[in-house]
Amino acid sequence: MVAIKDLLSEHTVVRPDGRAVDEMRPIRITDSFTDVPEGSVLIACGNTRVMCTATFTQGVPRWRKDSGQGWVTAEYSMLPRATAERTDRESVRGKIGGRTHEISRLIGRCLRGVVNMKALGENQIQLDCDVLQADGGTRTASITGAYVAMVEALRWAEERRFIRSADKVIKDSVSAVSVGVINGTPMLDLPYIEDSQAMTDMNVAMTGSGEFIEIQGTAEHRPFTRDELNVLLDLATKGNKELQAAQRAVLNARS
Amino acid sequence: MVAIKDLLSEHTVVRPDGRAVDEMRPIRITDSFTDVPEGSVLIACGNTRVMCTATFTQGVPRWRKDSGQGWVTAEYSMLPRATAERTDRESVRGKIGGRTHEISRLIGRCLRGVVNMKALGENQIQLDCDVLQADGGTRTASITGAYVAMVEALRWAEERRFIRSADKVIKDSVSAVSVGVINGTPMLDLPYIEDSQAMTDMNVAMTGSGEFIEIQGTAEHRPFTRDELNVLLDLATKGNKELQAAQRAVLNARS
Amino acid sequence: MVAIKDLLSEHTVVRPDGRAVDEMRPIRITDSFTDVPEGSVLIACGNTRVMCTATFTQGVPRWRKDSGQGWVTAEYSMLPRATAERTDRESVRGKIGGRTHEISRLIGRCLRGVVNMKALGENQIQLDCDVLQADGGTRTASITGAYVAMVEALRWAEERRFIRSADKVIKDSVSAVSVGVINGTPMLDLPYIEDSQAMTDMNVAMTGSGEFIEIQGTAEHRPFTRDELNVLLDLATKGNKELQAAQRAVLNARS
Amino acid sequence: MVAIKDLLSEHTVVRPDGRAVDEMRPIRITDSFTDVPEGSVLIACGNTRVMCTATFTQGVPRWRKDSGQGWVTAEYSMLPRATAERTDRESVRGKIGGRTHEISRLIGRCLRGVVNMKALGENQIQLDCDVLQADGGTRTASITGAYVAMVEALRWAEERRFIRSADKVIKDSVSAVSVGVINGTPMLDLPYIEDSQAMTDMNVAMTGSGEFIEIQGTAEHRPFTRDELNVLLDLATKGNKELQAAQRAVLNARS
Amino acid sequence: MVAIKDLLSEHTVVRPDGRAVDEMRPIRITDSFTDVPEGSVLIACGNTRVMCTATFTQGVPRWRKDSGQGWVTAEYSMLPRATAERTDRESVRGKIGGRTHEISRLIGRCLRGVVNMKALGENQIQLDCDVLQADGGTRTASITGAYVAMVEALRWAEERRFIRSADKVIKDSVSAVSVGVINGTPMLDLPYIEDSQAMTDMNVAMTGSGEFIEIQGTAEHRPFTRDELNVLLDLATKGNKELQAAQRAVLNARS
Amino acid sequence: MVAIKDLLSEHTVVRPDGRAVDEMRPIRITDSFTDVPEGSVLIACGNTRVMCTATFTQGVPRWRKDSGQGWVTAEYSMLPRATAERTDRESVRGKIGGRTHEISRLIGRCLRGVVNMKALGENQIQLDCDVLQADGGTRTASITGAYVAMVEALRWAEERRFIRSADKVIKDSVSAVSVGVINGTPMLDLPYIEDSQAMTDMNVAMTGSGEFIEIQGTAEHRPFTRDELNVLLDLATKGNKELQAAQRAVLNARS
Repeated sequence: MVAIKDLLSEHTVVRPDGRAVDEMRPIRITDSFTDVPEGSVLIACGNTRVMCTATFTQGVPRWRKDSGQGWVTAEYSMLPRATAERTDRESVRGKIGGRTHEISRLIGRCLRGVVNMKALGENQIQLDCDVLQADGGTRTASITGAYVAMVEALRWAEERRFIRSADKVIKDSVSAVSVGVINGTPMLDLPYIEDSQAMTDMNVAMTGSGEFIEIQGTAEHRPFTRDELNVLLDLATKGNKELQAAQRAVLNARS
Repeated sequence: MVAIKDLLSEHTVVRPDGRAVDEMRPIRITDSFTDVPEGSVLIACGNTRVMCTATFTQGVPRWRKDSGQGWVTAEYSMLPRATAERTDRESVRGKIGGRTHEISRLIGRCLRGVVNMKALGENQIQLDCDVLQADGGTRTASITGAYVAMVEALRWAEERRFIRSADKVIKDSVSAVSVGVINGTPMLDLPYIEDSQAMTDMNVAMTGSGEFIEIQGTAEHRPFTRDELNVLLDLATKGNKELQAAQRAVLNARS
Repeated sequence: MVAIKDLLSEHTVVRPDGRAVDEMRPIRITDSFTDVPEGSVLIACGNTRVMCTATFTQGVPRWRKDSGQGWVTAEYSMLPRATAERTDRESVRGKIGGRTHEISRLIGRCLRGVVNMKALGENQIQLDCDVLQADGGTRTASITGAYVAMVEALRWAEERRFIRSADKVIKDSVSAVSVGVINGTPMLDLPYIEDSQAMTDMNVAMTGSGEFIEIQGTAEHRPFTRDELNVLLDLATKGNKELQAAQRAVLNARS
Repeated sequence: MVAIKDLLSEHTVVRPDGRAVDEMRPIRITDSFTDVPEGSVLIACGNTRVMCTATFTQGVPRWRKDSGQGWVTAEYSMLPRATAERTDRESVRGKIGGRTHEISRLIGRCLRGVVNMKALGENQIQLDCDVLQADGGTRTASITGAYVAMVEALRWAEERRFIRSADKVIKDSVSAVSVGVINGTPMLDLPYIEDSQAMTDMNVAMTGSGEFIEIQGTAEHRPFTRDELNVLLDLATKGNKELQAAQRAVLNARS
Repeated sequence: MVAIKDLLSEHTVVRPDGRAVDEMRPIRITDSFTDVPEGSVLIACGNTRVMCTATFTQGVPRWRKDSGQGWVTAEYSMLPRATAERTDRESVRGKIGGRTHEISRLIGRCLRGVVNMKALGENQIQLDCDVLQADGGTRTASITGAYVAMVEALRWAEERRFIRSADKVIKDSVSAVSVGVINGTPMLDLPYIEDSQAMTDMNVAMTGSGEFIEIQGTAEHRPFTRDELNVLLDLATKGNKELQAAQRAVLNARS
Repeated sequence: MVAIKDLLSEHTVVRPDGRAVDEMRPIRITDSFTDVPEGSVLIACGNTRVMCTATFTQGVPRWRKDSGQGWVTAEYSMLPRATAERTDRESVRGKIGGRTHEISRLIGRCLRGVVNMKALGENQIQLDCDVLQADGGTRTASITGAYVAMVEALRWAEERRFIRSADKVIKDSVSAVSVGVINGTPMLDLPYIEDSQAMTDMNVAMTGSGEFIEIQGTAEHRPFTRDELNVLLDLATKGNKELQAAQRAVLNARS
């Protein structure tokens, strides 16, 4: 396997924002961003800003009734002017686009991947990720932020004895980061300007213990090799560790 | 006409948040809240927080073409957890509810009421008001915040010479406030807890020169008299003056 | 306060249909217009014609169950050729427009404003206002006609002992009229040609005892002053009294 | 072929409204029912009442452009309280039901069947049939009434020289009537109470010269024989002749 | 009545595919086409190919509950490339078109016309007819194929004792065929090229015993006479007999 | 890296259908399955059967105009009885579900990944993948089959000189296969029964030259390690080679 160090030494790449190829953008996670939700987080990854709320509700959807197990679901959306050109609202168009569906499902799967549904009991957590400003990596920021909001909500539920223990519901932490190959160079944490030029683009969600929850790599513009894949996964591992440190920092400050 | 002072002396009312009946909640207007839109404002009226963006686009909708005049339109929406109970997304339900339609139209009319469409030329301004947290008065906060975002966007357009003069496009400022009768007492700027108990509820949009752009008073629970109406309008006049001072403060700091 | 007489003497205005500025168009209310509904009215205000039906149903929507109270709701719609240019059907477009939503909600609030929900018991009244021909004032004609249809339906329900007493359910009558300022002159009951030129346009719903249920004044084209507001309210008071006389005439003929 | 006389002599049937089996309900056609449309008709067949308007527009849909030919289309709808139980609006449900689609298409085909599209030129006629009260036969009444509204609209267009000659556009008149087999007896012009009991139900649209434009016979409850079909067609022929006499009466009074 | 032989002798017509005017296209019915459904059939009539599945479910829709009777319903759809030009999917457009609605309803009525709902008991059969390739007569092929799929499903249900006897549920067989008048000549079983030129077009569903379940004749381009109708019905009778022979062949091979 | 041989020797797993863990289900690709589309393929992978058509159209969507480049897009859908329980049609529900959106987008990306858009010129290929029977791996079968249909369509276009050379448009072949971890054992090509038990599930699209176009691995039930990932990718490489041999076989037979 090609070591990431070696690979990076070969490419002395200047990124638009001056970062090294294996360097994350600044991460800020603000907890209790709004007052009302059981969990509410504003996450900023560079210029990307996502508001993530977690709604804890007793009871589960009908198909899950009497299973003794809970459910976690997610919805993702962009405000119209999160983007440089205004995007029409999906509510106005009367239907949800494919991209929104795809990302909402991804977030839901990632969060469910670290939840013990039995320990959650017949309760539901709904995660809402609304992008206030988009500069690449909105889906990965959503996953990273939604995790913190979900823990907030579970602590809220533990305090009110709706669940026994938030710690038992959470099997592990989860975060996600984007990586990609730009002009032949693998890079970590792509802003929009890089993302739109990427030959290969990959979103990697990992647990705190370093295992994978979700890998989505796509190569519309140039296929990628097994070696490139390995470098990208190394970069993603590095990035997710830093994201998880930021998650821990904000969660420990409160607990 | 009953003087507002007299009316208030009769009622020594204790409001849940300790305010006097003719006292506004704290107002904070943050301009340039996000980086990308031509105008972007976060307005907080008490616990109500609305993100207002203004999108300036050259050109107008088809029906307005070759008129030599511009157009201003608005869309209002609530994030799912702006409210104590999560509200389903209208995009997911596949249609916009009546309340959203009603409020979007109200905001649009109020802003158009202070715009000189000829001076704007064949350009369009789209106002997006997204409620991050709702505690009463979201539609009036939207109007007040959207005005600031619109001025930001017009200044942006003036700098780029898309319009000759932002000042000529803006005929006057506009703000809005809610008033209502609660247990027989007229009050200014109702938070949710008061709004839900109001017998009469009125939203009043006024210009900087003290004239009316929109009055919407409704009395589902008890009709109101001409005298009550007059007191409510006095209260609204007071509130709007304070909102307009806050608008000027943020706009003058930048100009 | 400026007396309406004085104001009118200043302006010797010729209206397109020869009316004085404080004169209503001819009003005709036909009760029992169709055979099947519990209440069915055709109201004509000038050339505006609206068919208003009231449907009485035992039981209330789910959210109202076990409250001991009833519910009143309304839907407004225009037939495609109510207007000079054919309007596409909202059923064909697959969604209800903002204007329709706004007006349906207005009618519902006005009618609920005169109903004692406890006396109605757990029963529902649905008002359907379908505009056969539109020449201004369709929403106010709908309110005025829907009131008569609602009383018809309540009498029907009283006869069948679904309610104890129609009179106890009805707290007061309600009617509505439009007023506006055209070329600086306040006027009563605007047909389409005047409505489309109005600087200020106001719809005023009042009870039989002269109190306000709803005031909606809008000034897209020129703000209005407190004095103008007062004249408009005087005109609306005069107009509503005449509408209520017409309501009484048709209802007394039957009772 | 079994003669209709013979068949009827065998059955001395008493219909709920006292009619003979081959007797139509009273027909009333009111032309110029509303003022604005190019053609506007209220047709009453017994208690069934349908408002039919015809909209004449210069130009044709895109797919028909530069063909030198016109187009005729129709939309059918029921007001919510046309029926004994209130029917939810299709605009509120957000989609058009199968029955509405089926009937709208039927009306369109029948009217196109008597129009010379070349003589119409690149102009469009839109027929709107809105059922104010439904007591069986709403689709056939719609066809019969729409024909009169269409002629009105063509005469209007001829006067304004949008078309050369209304008479050349109209190849023949068209009307429609329902027939059915109830308890083994073929009958003409079924009201709702009979229609709901019919084993076989057939709608027959015919030209003034006695040819068929559309036959729709359905036998959900009991198949029908060739002999029964022949009797039903005889009844339909008789009924259509009477409807066409009523059409001529109203059209000749005006021409 | 004009004999079909005589009529045909007058016209020595060459059809594009060399058939005689009263000759059917080749019919192939493949049963058990897919493994999972209770009934699954691929029917080919010439180049038209339709996959018909029958789903047997215990229980009936809510409005049918406690009636002791079953229900049969059908849905028709075309795959996008069933046609020469790709047709947009109705799921993507977000609504079902009028043609699809009309045909789905037709298929449902025809199949219900031969089912004894009491013998079916409170069970439901859903027929899905998906057109893989369209060359005229897709709706009639759907009816003919759906009948075979329905019998398969009923036999499946009888084996599992969900119903007593498939034979008692089926009152008679049903098939359907199209006929039409092309350049004045009545013809049997129209492929697309003929269908698009037809002056008159008729779909006729008949039972095994030769009675009619549904007749839908339409004459957008030239009305048809009683004599033409009679010839068309003779042709349809001949065609349906051949279709029913094919149905019996496939069903007897399995029973 | 753990060799696949070693890994398999550790697990002597019996799969429900008797296959070895690295063994594919039987593959059958039928080309020219229907007559009308430019490309039409029926692909069967075990019991999974998907009809893939390719529509070649001159011209591109508006946003792609004057780019000199083509476009490739895909839509995926399941027939109602592809599944053991009938699935409601998305056209009837009026909206496309998230899963359908997600898969349609995946197929489109994979096919675009092997197309030279410049060589395609301003032409569009629309791929329609309709699942006739679903037994796991419908999305990967769709990709594999759609590739063959696309080549068919490009050859068709080359013959008619709409494009210069099909070979130049196709940069490489593409196929896809599912792999997953079941009870700790990595396996190739999962049927439904295995897919529903998988802890980790991965779809891998690869080019003929062995590079990756898309990797989608998800671990809702148990995260996966880097070692497991490597074994899964080895299995996928083996499977894709076999699929590509089947693709070549059918394409060479025709060329």
